[in-house]
Amino acid sequence: MAFNAQAAGVYVIAATPFHSDGRIDTASIDRLTDFYIESGATGLTALGVMGEAPKLDAEESLALVRQMVRRAGKVPVVVGVTSPGFAPMRALARGAMEAGAAGVMIAPPNTLRTDDQIVAYFAQAREAIGDDVPFALQDYPLGFSVVMTPQVICRIVTENPSCVMLKLEDWPGLEKISAMRALEQSGRMRAVSILTGNGGIFVDFELERGANGAMTGYAFPDMLAELVRLSAAGERDRAHDLFDAHLPLMRYEQQPGVGLAVRKYILCRRGVLASDAQRKPASVLSAAGRAEVDYLLARLARVDARARLG
Amino acid sequence: MAFNAQAAGVYVIAATPFHSDGRIDTASIDRLTDFYIESGATGLTALGVMGEAPKLDAEESLALVRQMVRRAGKVPVVVGVTSPGFAPMRALARGAMEAGAAGVMIAPPNTLRTDDQIVAYFAQAREAIGDDVPFALQDYPLGFSVVMTPQVICRIVTENPSCVMLKLEDWPGLEKISAMRALEQSGRMRAVSILTGNGGIFVDFELERGANGAMTGYAFPDMLAELVRLSAAGERDRAHDLFDAHLPLMRYEQQPGVGLAVRKYILCRRGVLASDAQRKPASVLSAAGRAEVDYLLARLARVDARARLG
Amino acid sequence: MAFNAQAAGVYVIAATPFHSDGRIDTASIDRLTDFYIESGATGLTALGVMGEAPKLDAEESLALVRQMVRRAGKVPVVVGVTSPGFAPMRALARGAMEAGAAGVMIAPPNTLRTDDQIVAYFAQAREAIGDDVPFALQDYPLGFSVVMTPQVICRIVTENPSCVMLKLEDWPGLEKISAMRALEQSGRMRAVSILTGNGGIFVDFELERGANGAMTGYAFPDMLAELVRLSAAGERDRAHDLFDAHLPLMRYEQQPGVGLAVRKYILCRRGVLASDAQRKPASVLSAAGRAEVDYLLARLARVDARARLG
Amino acid sequence: MAFNAQAAGVYVIAATPFHSDGRIDTASIDRLTDFYIESGATGLTALGVMGEAPKLDAEESLALVRQMVRRAGKVPVVVGVTSPGFAPMRALARGAMEAGAAGVMIAPPNTLRTDDQIVAYFAQAREAIGDDVPFALQDYPLGFSVVMTPQVICRIVTENPSCVMLKLEDWPGLEKISAMRALEQSGRMRAVSILTGNGGIFVDFELERGANGAMTGYAFPDMLAELVRLSAAGERDRAHDLFDAHLPLMRYEQQPGVGLAVRKYILCRRGVLASDAQRKPASVLSAAGRAEVDYLLARLARVDARARLG
Repeated sequence: MAFNAQAAGVYVIAATPFHSDGRIDTASIDRLTDFYIESGATGLTALGVMGEAPKLDAEESLALVRQMVRRAGKVPVVVGVTSPGFAPMRALARGAMEAGAAGVMIAPPNTLRTDDQIVAYFAQAREAIGDDVPFALQDYPLGFSVVMTPQVICRIVTENPSCVMLKLEDWPGLEKISAMRALEQSGRMRAVSILTGNGGIFVDFELERGANGAMTGYAFPDMLAELVRLSAAGERDRAHDLFDAHLPLMRYEQQPGVGLAVRKYILCRRGVLASDAQRKPASVLSAAGRAEVDYLLARLARVDARARLG
Repeated sequence: MAFNAQAAGVYVIAATPFHSDGRIDTASIDRLTDFYIESGATGLTALGVMGEAPKLDAEESLALVRQMVRRAGKVPVVVGVTSPGFAPMRALARGAMEAGAAGVMIAPPNTLRTDDQIVAYFAQAREAIGDDVPFALQDYPLGFSVVMTPQVICRIVTENPSCVMLKLEDWPGLEKISAMRALEQSGRMRAVSILTGNGGIFVDFELERGANGAMTGYAFPDMLAELVRLSAAGERDRAHDLFDAHLPLMRYEQQPGVGLAVRKYILCRRGVLASDAQRKPASVLSAAGRAEVDYLLARLARVDARARLG
Repeated sequence: MAFNAQAAGVYVIAATPFHSDGRIDTASIDRLTDFYIESGATGLTALGVMGEAPKLDAEESLALVRQMVRRAGKVPVVVGVTSPGFAPMRALARGAMEAGAAGVMIAPPNTLRTDDQIVAYFAQAREAIGDDVPFALQDYPLGFSVVMTPQVICRIVTENPSCVMLKLEDWPGLEKISAMRALEQSGRMRAVSILTGNGGIFVDFELERGANGAMTGYAFPDMLAELVRLSAAGERDRAHDLFDAHLPLMRYEQQPGVGLAVRKYILCRRGVLASDAQRKPASVLSAAGRAEVDYLLARLARVDARARLG
Repeated sequence: MAFNAQAAGVYVIAATPFHSDGRIDTASIDRLTDFYIESGATGLTALGVMGEAPKLDAEESLALVRQMVRRAGKVPVVVGVTSPGFAPMRALARGAMEAGAAGVMIAPPNTLRTDDQIVAYFAQAREAIGDDVPFALQDYPLGFSVVMTPQVICRIVTENPSCVMLKLEDWPGLEKISAMRALEQSGRMRAVSILTGNGGIFVDFELERGANGAMTGYAFPDMLAELVRLSAAGERDRAHDLFDAHLPLMRYEQQPGVGLAVRKYILCRRGVLASDAQRKPASVLSAAGRAEVDYLLARLARVDARARLG
């Protein structure tokens, strides 16, 4: 297991555990790390930008990375270093690498518009963090309002040898995976690992289109790991059966904002987190929402023992 | 069946049929209208803004409305009149009403920002189309970049007696339905019909939260109609079983851009459309995409006979 | 005077005159057209997108074009045909050309993001209006949120022989003019006319950088015409003296929204418009605002007799 | 001189001096601070968000604040603490206050849309930095895509007693100043200081509408200080004469991106900065641009001795 262009499987976007008073829950970090690895994670992603990374200050961020890296052992930890400026990006990236991270992940600022602006941004980002830091390029137009064509991604990969992974969560994204793989096969682009996001709700077909795996935070990473195995083994129908059973819940957890509350609530119910608290500004799962999640879990439990919770 | 604040059931966003050379396929309009009504539609929505409405000129738009209204008989037809200016909005709205439409639907322009701007816009729109034209307010932040709080919707409903329906496709939207119903129950807002969109992928819980039905273009409107009946009858588990069976396909069809190609492809396979052609600019379903849809249909056909296609 | 790649001078963005009750003021259209031509306009632009074009319906738009074309005689009239769909764009463009317009102007929809999307859009637009309709490409990122690099503009000009003019109102835009001219001089791009906008507030240097003139609606088009003449004659200091005297007012008139109210107020004070009414939604010049404009006019009148108003 | 609701005059947005190799030029920080104070600044703003603040890491930011505060003596220093997350915002705000800053300035993230979201954001920001830290609210829709109505600003001011200043750079902004002052005078809003931005290009009328002064980085802060004095003394014509003489250059310096290059170039020519270097990503003033600035300075020098540079 390494963070490089051959990386595959499930990189779990790690939640950040908090106590109800807003302090970081360090005990839960260890338990969460263990849980992810026991679930079959081939990598962990700390400080994801759509998670609660911006709610941590610089010191807390590095402390979290240090703890997770130590606990994860041989499992590579990738650190989100997206930032409005290159100086804080560099500081976090260098600090994370010194702490033992395997690499970093960078998303573009939502002010970029033209192809050239996007390409230039990643060249500057790579220069800022240093050529020796492998990085994943995060392509998430719905979240960042930056649209990258396959050609633009190809230019970024080509200009930046340390770009080893594409986190692809464009929507729709299936044709984009095919387009990226076609660029590779025609020799116009160096091969990189492609992991997909969007809460996993297209991972069934994404794997068939050529993705190496998923990078997402769905509260059943063990299911994602099994799905990747089934798909790799050519067990198409069984893979879809498993996926379809989880889709109603995955869809519910993928909702912007409240999705994080759903995720933490399930991780609590699974006994991994001590609290589903978020730092402010927090999204809240209403009583009606909790009841809906419970209902979805109960339905899922009929076919997947992992959802049989106490 | 009438287009008013008690409207319920399934309003189908009607596709616009084209020949492969770009001409409107008028024969298919009749067949499509019949199909929707046989599927249990309680209303039809013509010229939806996310469909191909902008690809029709003013004359074609009115001709399509006239034909659909005539064919639909007693089933009300609502016409999308969203426009960058109030003069063309008025012209289309008045023309549609003269042609026998039951009302219109209006979405906000993506330049609106503040609460007051949004409220003022709908007051001006209502004045433009005339107080005698009932209208549905379309709340679709993902598509229009305009975010309306429940309070803003309440102000619009209160200021505009001719606003009879809320097409709610905020994402997430479940809590918003609950909030709108709470405003009604507390007497702070007049009751309006709430129909939901977003391709139907949350309609299972939306009905339970208080929605009166769905307004969407999913290629199995007959399933949506059955789902509304099951939900209204309190058959919760059966409703979710039906919904869950369709969710993998609904999710696929909900993809922006390519989703319309998926929808037209399925309507062709169901024998309703003669061609899945779109006017330019058209989205395209690749061979791989078609195979994926076929696979999803085959899986669905195991549990829903409607998906057993020739 | 013709609308082609050699077009130069001042194309005035024509205001649309209304009576206070919202009807179009046809008498003022003639007077306004005469005024623009007497002011030295080498062309007129009807139905500018940031003006009140969206407030006219299809019939009114064509009627206005017909009247202005007839009145303008040999002076070419360019018609804004920007539209959310290609069918209404085509209908207006064909109708305008039949009415004697010299060409059309097209701005991109604010949903375009990537270079390829922008290039594809203009190819489709050209196909929609027909290869025989000369058009101006409007590059106005502040208004349309679409950013076009010089390379993208070069691709559009190259792919579309009927693109004869670039209305350049990027901000900042001086280096872009230089970049476009450099692309021409190196033979990589066919020459097109470059007219500048942004209310004229950079026209002093834009002319020096290579623009052929201005296309804007400043209420002193006679000053703009004089400025173009001075600049072309190499009278640099005199050109800047004239420009600097007008800049305080130009800046005031360039404000979004209220700027149109300022412009119409001044055109009233100059005796050209009978009313400064706008169709709804209208911007309003407050009493304080009117007093500020009057003060600026009085200051301007000390050095420019054109501002000495009754 | 203090940073409170009575603050008036000129708060200069301080440039951040760099050596050509990207290191911070600490010697120039002192010289720049002295220059601003000698120019009549009543306050300084460090780490402005549209400047190069994001290019500094956390340590550099605090070091710069410490140095500037020490050098500024009794002149209050306000520190921009805008951040994508509340934890880094808090860390910088607390650090800045410990270093002797007089307060902070906060701009909203460009993802906020509804009135309630904006109001909630500032309540959370105030809670994050602490009730004891006075802050300026930055209202700059063109830069941040967040539009605040006067009512929203009123709510923020009312809910947050530590909000002492409004940096108003809406465009247009004159009516907004009048609206804010009317809210105060009617007793519906506590009085706050209103300083204006936008590069100063409306400061002539902004002062007359009720602004207490300007907060901007124009390279002639001495002229701004004189303008505030003239306006306060009722010398309206002399104030406008001075303003009009500078407007051609102010407009040039207000251009997005390249404006910072213009500003640093002029500060070099005035002998304040040793280098006009920017940290990457840097905007560049071309040879043609420099010649244009030189020409504008030469023209200005005819009437303002401050522009007579060696």
